[in-house]
Amino acid sequence: MSGNTFGKLFCVTSFGESHGPAIGCVVDGCPPGLALSEADIQPDLDRRRPGTSKYVTQRKEADRVEILSGVFEGRTTGTPIALLIRNTDQRSYDYEKIKQVFRPNHADYAYIQKYGVRDHRGGGRSSARETAVRVAAGAIARKYLRERLGIEIRGCVEQVGPIECAIVDWSAVHTNPFFCADPARVPELERLIDRLRREGDSVGARLYVEARNVPPGLGEPVFDRLDADLAHALMSINAVKGVEIGDGMRVAAMRGTEHRDEMSPDGFLANHSGGIAGGISTGQTVYARYAIKPTSSITALGKSIDETGAATEVRTTGRHDPCVGLRATPIGEAMMALVLMDHWLRQRAQNADVKPATPRIPAGDD
Amino acid sequence: MSGNTFGKLFCVTSFGESHGPAIGCVVDGCPPGLALSEADIQPDLDRRRPGTSKYVTQRKEADRVEILSGVFEGRTTGTPIALLIRNTDQRSYDYEKIKQVFRPNHADYAYIQKYGVRDHRGGGRSSARETAVRVAAGAIARKYLRERLGIEIRGCVEQVGPIECAIVDWSAVHTNPFFCADPARVPELERLIDRLRREGDSVGARLYVEARNVPPGLGEPVFDRLDADLAHALMSINAVKGVEIGDGMRVAAMRGTEHRDEMSPDGFLANHSGGIAGGISTGQTVYARYAIKPTSSITALGKSIDETGAATEVRTTGRHDPCVGLRATPIGEAMMALVLMDHWLRQRAQNADVKPATPRIPAGDD
Amino acid sequence: MSGNTFGKLFCVTSFGESHGPAIGCVVDGCPPGLALSEADIQPDLDRRRPGTSKYVTQRKEADRVEILSGVFEGRTTGTPIALLIRNTDQRSYDYEKIKQVFRPNHADYAYIQKYGVRDHRGGGRSSARETAVRVAAGAIARKYLRERLGIEIRGCVEQVGPIECAIVDWSAVHTNPFFCADPARVPELERLIDRLRREGDSVGARLYVEARNVPPGLGEPVFDRLDADLAHALMSINAVKGVEIGDGMRVAAMRGTEHRDEMSPDGFLANHSGGIAGGISTGQTVYARYAIKPTSSITALGKSIDETGAATEVRTTGRHDPCVGLRATPIGEAMMALVLMDHWLRQRAQNADVKPATPRIPAGDD
Amino acid sequence: MSGNTFGKLFCVTSFGESHGPAIGCVVDGCPPGLALSEADIQPDLDRRRPGTSKYVTQRKEADRVEILSGVFEGRTTGTPIALLIRNTDQRSYDYEKIKQVFRPNHADYAYIQKYGVRDHRGGGRSSARETAVRVAAGAIARKYLRERLGIEIRGCVEQVGPIECAIVDWSAVHTNPFFCADPARVPELERLIDRLRREGDSVGARLYVEARNVPPGLGEPVFDRLDADLAHALMSINAVKGVEIGDGMRVAAMRGTEHRDEMSPDGFLANHSGGIAGGISTGQTVYARYAIKPTSSITALGKSIDETGAATEVRTTGRHDPCVGLRATPIGEAMMALVLMDHWLRQRAQNADVKPATPRIPAGDD
Repeated sequence: MSGNTFGKLFCVTSFGESHGPAIGCVVDGCPPGLALSEADIQPDLDRRRPGTSKYVTQRKEADRVEILSGVFEGRTTGTPIALLIRNTDQRSYDYEKIKQVFRPNHADYAYIQKYGVRDHRGGGRSSARETAVRVAAGAIARKYLRERLGIEIRGCVEQVGPIECAIVDWSAVHTNPFFCADPARVPELERLIDRLRREGDSVGARLYVEARNVPPGLGEPVFDRLDADLAHALMSINAVKGVEIGDGMRVAAMRGTEHRDEMSPDGFLANHSGGIAGGISTGQTVYARYAIKPTSSITALGKSIDETGAATEVRTTGRHDPCVGLRATPIGEAMMALVLMDHWLRQRAQNADVKPATPRIPAGDD
Repeated sequence: MSGNTFGKLFCVTSFGESHGPAIGCVVDGCPPGLALSEADIQPDLDRRRPGTSKYVTQRKEADRVEILSGVFEGRTTGTPIALLIRNTDQRSYDYEKIKQVFRPNHADYAYIQKYGVRDHRGGGRSSARETAVRVAAGAIARKYLRERLGIEIRGCVEQVGPIECAIVDWSAVHTNPFFCADPARVPELERLIDRLRREGDSVGARLYVEARNVPPGLGEPVFDRLDADLAHALMSINAVKGVEIGDGMRVAAMRGTEHRDEMSPDGFLANHSGGIAGGISTGQTVYARYAIKPTSSITALGKSIDETGAATEVRTTGRHDPCVGLRATPIGEAMMALVLMDHWLRQRAQNADVKPATPRIPAGDD
Repeated sequence: MSGNTFGKLFCVTSFGESHGPAIGCVVDGCPPGLALSEADIQPDLDRRRPGTSKYVTQRKEADRVEILSGVFEGRTTGTPIALLIRNTDQRSYDYEKIKQVFRPNHADYAYIQKYGVRDHRGGGRSSARETAVRVAAGAIARKYLRERLGIEIRGCVEQVGPIECAIVDWSAVHTNPFFCADPARVPELERLIDRLRREGDSVGARLYVEARNVPPGLGEPVFDRLDADLAHALMSINAVKGVEIGDGMRVAAMRGTEHRDEMSPDGFLANHSGGIAGGISTGQTVYARYAIKPTSSITALGKSIDETGAATEVRTTGRHDPCVGLRATPIGEAMMALVLMDHWLRQRAQNADVKPATPRIPAGDD
Repeated sequence: MSGNTFGKLFCVTSFGESHGPAIGCVVDGCPPGLALSEADIQPDLDRRRPGTSKYVTQRKEADRVEILSGVFEGRTTGTPIALLIRNTDQRSYDYEKIKQVFRPNHADYAYIQKYGVRDHRGGGRSSARETAVRVAAGAIARKYLRERLGIEIRGCVEQVGPIECAIVDWSAVHTNPFFCADPARVPELERLIDRLRREGDSVGARLYVEARNVPPGLGEPVFDRLDADLAHALMSINAVKGVEIGDGMRVAAMRGTEHRDEMSPDGFLANHSGGIAGGISTGQTVYARYAIKPTSSITALGKSIDETGAATEVRTTGRHDPCVGLRATPIGEAMMALVLMDHWLRQRAQNADVKPATPRIPAGDD
């Protein structure tokens, strides 16, 4: 209830601080019989892992996941799956100097107001490190969705500060450290990040995530709409400040005749709605965008206060990403997977015996 | 669990169809001792009500709310508050003609795929009529927040199709049917809506909502961040396709030095983050924007299929808003109130005895 | 979260006070396609209804239920089903005299300590009247379970004060006002209740409830065991102080060789465990017992205090049952139905695609 | 949602199998600022630990708990507290022989029907080993309740098969391996257990647990009554088949004049109700009893079936308790602590600002 559990039927309960002994989670509600081992989870973790290129934080974490329960003889049993990732490269001394001050735009001040205490080591619970756990849990959901329902989830970066990246070639996404599907933009991105690091500054990003082959019928009509739950999921990622489903904020300027997705026996004729109507999936590709603010941990001096309330200036050293958005693609994919998995189970609970009379039309979006 | 309950401690369970006998909700978790009568709820309902100007749907609903429980001798008792609104102006015959077809970009097709059946009268549960219930429940939260914590919530329209409306004068918002704080734009808005109605088309909108005097400390660090719950709340409103907290999608283009909200003993020096850091309120004004797609119910012919899967064309008659966003300001305010109320109770549950050692700084945003 | 919702997937949210305008509930999560009208619910309500014989409270309530939503053209649609029962025979003046005093063993004192206020009219929310709502909601679950799964739920009284009633003839249960399956005991029961009424006293009761044809596999292994949820459900009925599954409290004196239910290809050889092993149904008959304390509302004078804390004596007049247990059989059946329905949906969510390799053996208990 | 989380505001999510690498839990919702280290938890774990006397299972588990998160500089931070207990003395070979058969009255058969697979090693998730986690989590709740509210929780055995144990001397409870407060009965208990072990049989038990100094006002009026949640909690302990609050099942035979707890300015005059009225604590001692069935794992041959459905006979070897109830006292105490802690937070959420006008009377039960 303190907000560390995500999902109502496929429930992920997350724990752990950036600089404590370990992070991890309990995944409760996974159906039995899914083939699962650490090898299914590790690749997604490796994609999010820090220290993999010079463009991201240099913290070196192996991020080795250990499955503690819920799997027997290589298959899930239907009981809770506990995942453990030991922290190995904490350097708390980096944080001693900011112990008495509040870093601008960090969670420091809000935490102390909320809890009266805070774990000042690397942001504690507000660190992006926590997202490793989401990626690990998401990998389980993703495997289930892919193997049982044929759902494919993928994401990429669309904008990094002033640089826009088109989706030119999905296969390029994993050939560069930016999750960029527009290979021609990669050298520009490299130069941008290099320059930011020199200037002690950071930059925001916009990411795209989609799920293909989602069956129609996932989502609930009112509060727990599929799009509302996606918005919750994506906005719960550190530093995300905006979420768009389908055409997103641009719908404000659109006409009904332009926006509505017409239908034909051969499939939908457009997908402005992001594959969701009335909060329920239509069978089209479900897609969303999310914007991540520039890292607040920058070395440029900033005005702030200390724990006595006095004015001070702060320079956040330590090992930080000049663009935290660069590692956020796998996190968005994971959150998409968790939302779809949860709604798949919910759909099955209420409607397992529904036999739609109406023929399904193709997604029409390939 | 079918997604008709909102909130974890201040729980609103909504029921009712557009063309059934009644809509309503149960509000569970309201603290005892709050002075409450129908007169506290009706004004907000009246602001959202259809048929109040020629720019919105001509359905005439009195939207009279009745409190069925939870209030005794003019005060809440701590037990569930049931609210009932009878439907009085249903015209189901408008819908007979669309019984066998799916309207483009409506929930029709998704519903039939999910449930195998659907209530075709006016969209049933997917109708914007359901939002009256949110406004009613939100009015209770709003009264508590205002009386006990001094929190003020207000909203307005910022964009209607091609027309941008600045926030020039908050007092103007209730002097025009558009919730527009920019009086000079009102004649343009009138002409736009008139033209759309003639053309059988519709248009989208972008709305703004803010809460002032929110105490610091509301929100949870990980999944149930205040911003994530706001995103969930706003995206759960019919037709919303994008949600922004603070600078929203624009953060993708920003630098860290530009975006971070510096602090001083006299208050915050900026509020790019929308009053939320690390998912927790900072004491600044909490604000958000949400974009609403153009009404799908338009009279312009659209391609679709019927229940046999055959191609057809559909014209949605009935009484519809050319811009459903025009009535959505009170809904956004209500959802903001529900989220803050829920997190206030959550904060109190866990941290009622916390005495922050650090002096609080002013919001700095007035 | 204030505890007025029961169930996780088949969710019943109850509202209403004994002497307010109405009681009712919202049932969220009912699968679509179930034939449903008021006529399916009314008979169970009538069985619990007050004023039906001289042995129970003389309050005359029609207890007419109205379905406000979630049913279209005679079938459930998958959306929330709101049920409304107007109160018609409140006599609040009976309660004016106890406004300033606390009745012994009533909820009065606990309520005022909890909420600071209380609805003193007939106990408000703590009245047994609230259970009408459970019976109404349970009737929906019961119909689904019977029609779709063949599950039959039934109950009877086993003890009223000093009188033990065997299960001699199930068909007799509905031929007397005591839900007694032992026709020979009925005259004794009549004499007992008559005497109690004369003496201004009351008496406790023990009830039995069973569900036959429950499929194996319902229930969760750890906290939400089927037996734990049944215990929660039955203990949540007003005045219940003890719950037993299978052999119940008697297991304390038993040997393992005596208690364990052995198995054979022809079925289970005994059912000491109440049809539940490890928290999960086995396919045997699920059964439970619950003990209801004697009504606290008696006319015999009792020592108490008033709102100033001073000593006083209280005589509870009004219209009360000399044995509140006499009307509690339908409530226990309803709670059994709600628990099974919830676990059926939960089972389906997680394990809809499980195909047990092992042959099922018969219940072996008929 | 698969039932491995207990509590709504103080949430314990349990994981782990008897013979997997580890068991543990995540405790979410603990208020910040509570002094906490492993040393606060270990003593309770040691009281429940196997292998401590010849009267219980000879499995030797150190049951060393490790705190992985949520504690910083010796105090809770308000973030999730993860607890880990490695399994060290698994002997899975004991279970190979029962791999293809179902042990009578074990969860084996129900699991395979539910999940299609099962972890046959030591019962997997249905093992009493899981309760170590509850004791660990309960120790945190207990410390908070004791330090902040002065609540004291304690329990003892009242019956072991034919032997009844009175509460003669609370200080004796920890001087014998049976949690017996009646020192004169200890030799009898020793002889009974010795005899059972020789005979390959087992026996049931009845336990008592109480909480003193519980403030009035904890509990919710309808479904989530304090007694209903206690019943859920205690019935969720392995092998429990009956739960009683206050006079329990005996109320069926009682008169209202006999059962009702009268009140005076000097306190309550009796406590038949177990300290709970209308589902809400009264300020009296809260107490309950729970009956535990005889261990099903006995060496006496029992009739059963194998995985092909054929008849067989089973003898359960391995290291088992002749009376699993003997180690269940700390578990009941832990569950009582979890329930009270949860309701304390719930009470605070809704009613933190309630100032009861009425003077509180003493518990009157010491």
